[in-house]
Amino acid sequence: MLSQQRILTSELAQHVGHRVVLQGWLHKLRQLGAVNFLVLRDRAGIAQAVLGPDELAALQSIAVESILAVEGKVIAAAAAPGGYELHDVVIQIINPVTEAPPVAINKKRVNAALPTILSSAVVSYRHPYHRAIFRLGGGVMHGFRRKLHELAFIEIQTPKLVGSATESGANVYSVDHFGQTAYLAQSPQFYKQIMVGVFERVYEVGPVFRAEKHATSRHINEYVSLDAEFGFIEDHFSVMEMVTIVIEAILSHLATCHAEDLALLEADMPQAIHSQDGRYFPWIHFQDARALLAEEFGATDTAGAVDLTPEHERLLGQWALNAHGSDFLFVVGYPMRKRPFYTHPDPRDPVHSNSFDLLFRGTELITGGQRLHRYADYLQALEQRGYSPTDFTHYLDAFRYGMPPHGGFAIGLERFVMQLLGLENIRLATLFPRDINRLTP
Amino acid sequence: MLSQQRILTSELAQHVGHRVVLQGWLHKLRQLGAVNFLVLRDRAGIAQAVLGPDELAALQSIAVESILAVEGKVIAAAAAPGGYELHDVVIQIINPVTEAPPVAINKKRVNAALPTILSSAVVSYRHPYHRAIFRLGGGVMHGFRRKLHELAFIEIQTPKLVGSATESGANVYSVDHFGQTAYLAQSPQFYKQIMVGVFERVYEVGPVFRAEKHATSRHINEYVSLDAEFGFIEDHFSVMEMVTIVIEAILSHLATCHAEDLALLEADMPQAIHSQDGRYFPWIHFQDARALLAEEFGATDTAGAVDLTPEHERLLGQWALNAHGSDFLFVVGYPMRKRPFYTHPDPRDPVHSNSFDLLFRGTELITGGQRLHRYADYLQALEQRGYSPTDFTHYLDAFRYGMPPHGGFAIGLERFVMQLLGLENIRLATLFPRDINRLTP
Repeated sequence: MLSQQRILTSELAQHVGHRVVLQGWLHKLRQLGAVNFLVLRDRAGIAQAVLGPDELAALQSIAVESILAVEGKVIAAAAAPGGYELHDVVIQIINPVTEAPPVAINKKRVNAALPTILSSAVVSYRHPYHRAIFRLGGGVMHGFRRKLHELAFIEIQTPKLVGSATESGANVYSVDHFGQTAYLAQSPQFYKQIMVGVFERVYEVGPVFRAEKHATSRHINEYVSLDAEFGFIEDHFSVMEMVTIVIEAILSHLATCHAEDLALLEADMPQAIHSQDGRYFPWIHFQDARALLAEEFGATDTAGAVDLTPEHERLLGQWALNAHGSDFLFVVGYPMRKRPFYTHPDPRDPVHSNSFDLLFRGTELITGGQRLHRYADYLQALEQRGYSPTDFTHYLDAFRYGMPPHGGFAIGLERFVMQLLGLENIRLATLFPRDINRLTP
Repeated sequence: MLSQQRILTSELAQHVGHRVVLQGWLHKLRQLGAVNFLVLRDRAGIAQAVLGPDELAALQSIAVESILAVEGKVIAAAAAPGGYELHDVVIQIINPVTEAPPVAINKKRVNAALPTILSSAVVSYRHPYHRAIFRLGGGVMHGFRRKLHELAFIEIQTPKLVGSATESGANVYSVDHFGQTAYLAQSPQFYKQIMVGVFERVYEVGPVFRAEKHATSRHINEYVSLDAEFGFIEDHFSVMEMVTIVIEAILSHLATCHAEDLALLEADMPQAIHSQDGRYFPWIHFQDARALLAEEFGATDTAGAVDLTPEHERLLGQWALNAHGSDFLFVVGYPMRKRPFYTHPDPRDPVHSNSFDLLFRGTELITGGQRLHRYADYLQALEQRGYSPTDFTHYLDAFRYGMPPHGGFAIGLERFVMQLLGLENIRLATLFPRDINRLTP
């Protein structure tokens, strides 16, 4: 029995009139009395099979999520999901389930509060809605890598156990490494810069760790960072151009290869709007953004401010949509004192930096900019901030022995998916989120 | 000056007779007296430029690895690297270096001992030989992902901070997470199995952490694991078939897209040899391997043994090459007691497992197999090993609520590159290796 090779629920149309075997999870039993169906879920979707009284009886003793093989004849049926269903079925129970799952995953949505969804993630992610979110996350990584590979970037994997608390001493996880103290990398920043000295153009997709004691809807302690860094640039506008190219490539990849996920998730895809000269998304200088916030939005807390609050970002996102019709907005030239020591100053205005944030629908999505490239500039920057160069010996060697003007950027994967889908919490876009209260599943 | 767009050293042939601009590192000055050259290195390779006395003089005050832009006319020159050189040059020093690097990177090889190469990695990896090793590592990841993507596997990124010391309590790094103890994931094993319940087919490329106090030439404490897991399999032979497909795809990708790296590294590419029935690399059962080791190689320590020593693996690798002409050999059916609790036993011989190792040139490259899929089997396996099910609640829920027969495998990225290139130490294939003595660079 069932010796035929399995086909997927999405392939029924190619087998009309023939007997086929489906394998998957018992998604639902639809007992209508006169006619009864089982709905089977596999990686491609769902399909229904018409049950006779014997098959229905055999399924009464098992719960949903049981693993089944269902053989039957493919019949066109306009009312069936996908337009086809199986008749004259033979069912094999491959792995029975005896208890109902902690959350129902065969309704339109998982009808549970976020903490329950997350605590039951092992099951709730099987729901087609949640599944689509994470398939889309895979698509974002794919689109990112594909474009950078095409542009001669080399993929690197840099260590996550590092010997010194790099970018700042705060908010870093420490780890005992055979009696030495190691730290979990807060970003691959130093390594990707070092590797510009080797490959000129590098990227990395990997975890970063922030031991921040926050409990907001848009922060988690471990997330996936999509990092790129490249040399022989003019300034931060070269980086902004690359960001624009990469974001557009990701969106285009999603539109092409994830149309079904986007439809299921009711995603509101952003329009790719370029600035006047066509090279990048619209941008505004930090100073002008502050003035705008004060003048147009009556934000009174911007004078002397060196950063933007989430509320400022929200207002600027709104402004970008109104003024430019764009879901994206670069804010350029943040004050040097709010940016890390490796940030390159604006040569014409050294209080401000050659760095930027990219806001996506009013929330920071990407941070990037031009970095210092001269050894002497690094020594000076470290001294100004009270750091000791001996804590950065290897990193500094990259600059001591020749580095081109360079810059880069980092995209938070989960943040991107959250903003793209308008999710209310980043945890919905994070496979197994870690926060101050959550280390499992 | 130098307003032209940069071209790469590999593109000179397309510009013969025209003036172009190269940008890169001052790789070497070749002062022959009558004629003098500078050799410039960029991401694509090297090129030379003929220097007049003024240009030569200007370069005397700077060291190799200085960043230069060199404008000149492209002339065919049979003796030049790549067959072309620049004449009538104008040089711009973009970022001067004042000191010679700690290791010379402009000779055929970095002439230094391994610890020196690693301590100077920031510079030594710029050498074309070392650079090619890591570009090849990028190629392995690319080939792995490309094939699995094509086979409908979904990419996941699972947390590296985990709430319990999963596979075994030993050799795990612990981390303080706001007063709770977290651990660094030794593998994505539990998560990739859980995600089979969601996507059926998943893969992940990411770091894994092993706090093992070893100091061998083939172990490091943090490495990159290429993991795959998939459902609706027959048994471990389904997994071995997938391993064979994936390894062949990686090798084929390298041969196609990394021919230059392979030539530079003098790589001895393995022949993709299938077993008799053509579905996988040759295989031998653990029991038969033991008998073979005793009979053909006089290995006296195999009786009652439940594992293979590195020396056994070496001998079996030799045997596979002689008997099958294959650099790869699956050893199948390791004793259950040496495999993790989630390993599926051989139904006909439950002392042995439905698991395998793949030896590549006599060294273990891949571990894989069929996993348990029934909830009751997990409870029993945990009990037998003295584990408490409550330590595995979320993981067990995946099986409690329906999992298909499944299996998977993991490839060590650095191990693969080491074996492919015949490197004497895995550290040469590891971007910034971590071991008991090394946390930097």
